[in-house]
Amino acid sequence: MSNRSETPVTVIGLGLMGQALAAAFLKAGHPTTVWNRTASKADQLVAAGARLAPTVADALEAGPLTLLCVSDYQAVRELLGDLDLDGTTLVNLTSGDSAQARQTAAWAEQRGARYLDGAIMAIPPVIGTADAVILHSGPQADFEAHEPVLEALGTVTYLGTDPGLASLYDVAGLAMMWSVLNAWLQGTALLRTAGVDAATYAPFARLMAAGVADWLPGYAEQVDKGSFPAEVAALETDARSMAHLIEESEAAGVNAELPKLFKAMADRAIAAGHGGEQYPVLIEEFAKPSTD
Amino acid sequence: MSNRSETPVTVIGLGLMGQALAAAFLKAGHPTTVWNRTASKADQLVAAGARLAPTVADALEAGPLTLLCVSDYQAVRELLGDLDLDGTTLVNLTSGDSAQARQTAAWAEQRGARYLDGAIMAIPPVIGTADAVILHSGPQADFEAHEPVLEALGTVTYLGTDPGLASLYDVAGLAMMWSVLNAWLQGTALLRTAGVDAATYAPFARLMAAGVADWLPGYAEQVDKGSFPAEVAALETDARSMAHLIEESEAAGVNAELPKLFKAMADRAIAAGHGGEQYPVLIEEFAKPSTD
Repeated sequence: MSNRSETPVTVIGLGLMGQALAAAFLKAGHPTTVWNRTASKADQLVAAGARLAPTVADALEAGPLTLLCVSDYQAVRELLGDLDLDGTTLVNLTSGDSAQARQTAAWAEQRGARYLDGAIMAIPPVIGTADAVILHSGPQADFEAHEPVLEALGTVTYLGTDPGLASLYDVAGLAMMWSVLNAWLQGTALLRTAGVDAATYAPFARLMAAGVADWLPGYAEQVDKGSFPAEVAALETDARSMAHLIEESEAAGVNAELPKLFKAMADRAIAAGHGGEQYPVLIEEFAKPSTD
Repeated sequence: MSNRSETPVTVIGLGLMGQALAAAFLKAGHPTTVWNRTASKADQLVAAGARLAPTVADALEAGPLTLLCVSDYQAVRELLGDLDLDGTTLVNLTSGDSAQARQTAAWAEQRGARYLDGAIMAIPPVIGTADAVILHSGPQADFEAHEPVLEALGTVTYLGTDPGLASLYDVAGLAMMWSVLNAWLQGTALLRTAGVDAATYAPFARLMAAGVADWLPGYAEQVDKGSFPAEVAALETDARSMAHLIEESEAAGVNAELPKLFKAMADRAIAAGHGGEQYPVLIEEFAKPSTD
């Protein structure tokens, strides 16, 4: 443990998130070097024990591991473009998409760097706690070599060698977040028309979301097998209930766009002959490009 | 406990669900009377100890509590239309909407019945276990009078006096179910394009859904107060991430309709001046009729 906390770390980019990352390393006892285009953003960190590097090159030389958290992937290339990256491991936590991650991984590796791409599924105030989930993808050996240091940031997770995975899991996870929130808002809007306040309805919505979440590993087996026997219910039964949701929403004067999209996708799968199969058969609709 | 299991119960309507309800009462030791238009559907129940009533009137007279589980609300009125319902408590578990539940409650009460409306959030095989959630709405005293008997069916829940609540909670809960499943399918489709199978992705989706579910009671406070300070993140940050989800989905060749609807609703709220507030401010969009 003492060796671990003596490992030096560099953080480049000191927006709110970068500052939180550097602060978590300092708190865990790591000698922490920082760099930011506007140096004054380092003031609080320097007061807490960080070293402000005068140049990016100097920051990279401070140790074997550098985290990047800047405005976009273009900024990453501009900052590192002329530098010798040999022997450096970059962990790029900058927001971007999977294509940018893959391109930047190839670019960095051509310059001699080891490269991990990451996505932070947390807000700055929780960095350094178990609530901060940080996803990593790239070469497994590079992740494992630095995992003990990265653990200072929160719950660090390794996804696989494809550097695009962190971005893909990130947006997929956000899709789940928005979906749970939207379904809760749909139900809240509906129940409010019957005089039920949001606080009364929320525990029910919470139980439903958590209960359905528990089905996912089992339903995933159906997707991987490509076989969707209606063990629980047939898709055509879902579609009839979707019609009820649309009718209730419209009768109550609340938005029905989300229920209508659910039903439109289910109806397409039914038209394709899947009405007697189970809900996960909709993977065939989700896996196709939109026609709109 | 012995008194409880001596309470007679009547079940009218012996589809798969009605049969499961009657079987659960029999298993719990209740003298159970059944009726069905096609009497042969009662054969297994009679073999298990049920009494087949020759008429609906006879079935109602067998005891103070009658559960109805027939094809639709019209069938309920046709079956009971000419009968004396004085002193009978009806628990109507027939599928229907909140308007039908309210109308049927008024109709039954005019005929002297006590009336509870219910919704079964379970499939027949789990009836009689704690996994069978059954929602009830109507006069609280009538629910409480029969709750010990109804508990033979599963996890019975009382929602409030408005008889339409069971239907509304039912469709709201289903909206959550479809939303969690759709978000999981969106993520699964996206990750499969990077070679990640559904079984590998599912635990992450499950954690996200359960984690976000835990936020709902806190977010409900914002809705009830009508005040949405951006404690975690501003809606405009969500909208930017939604654009990433759309781009990743389109780049991967998977369906983007759901992400596009998320963003369209968020964009409308931002256009209405709510970009700096937190996600639950979208209740204002969900509470309005669709414009399409």
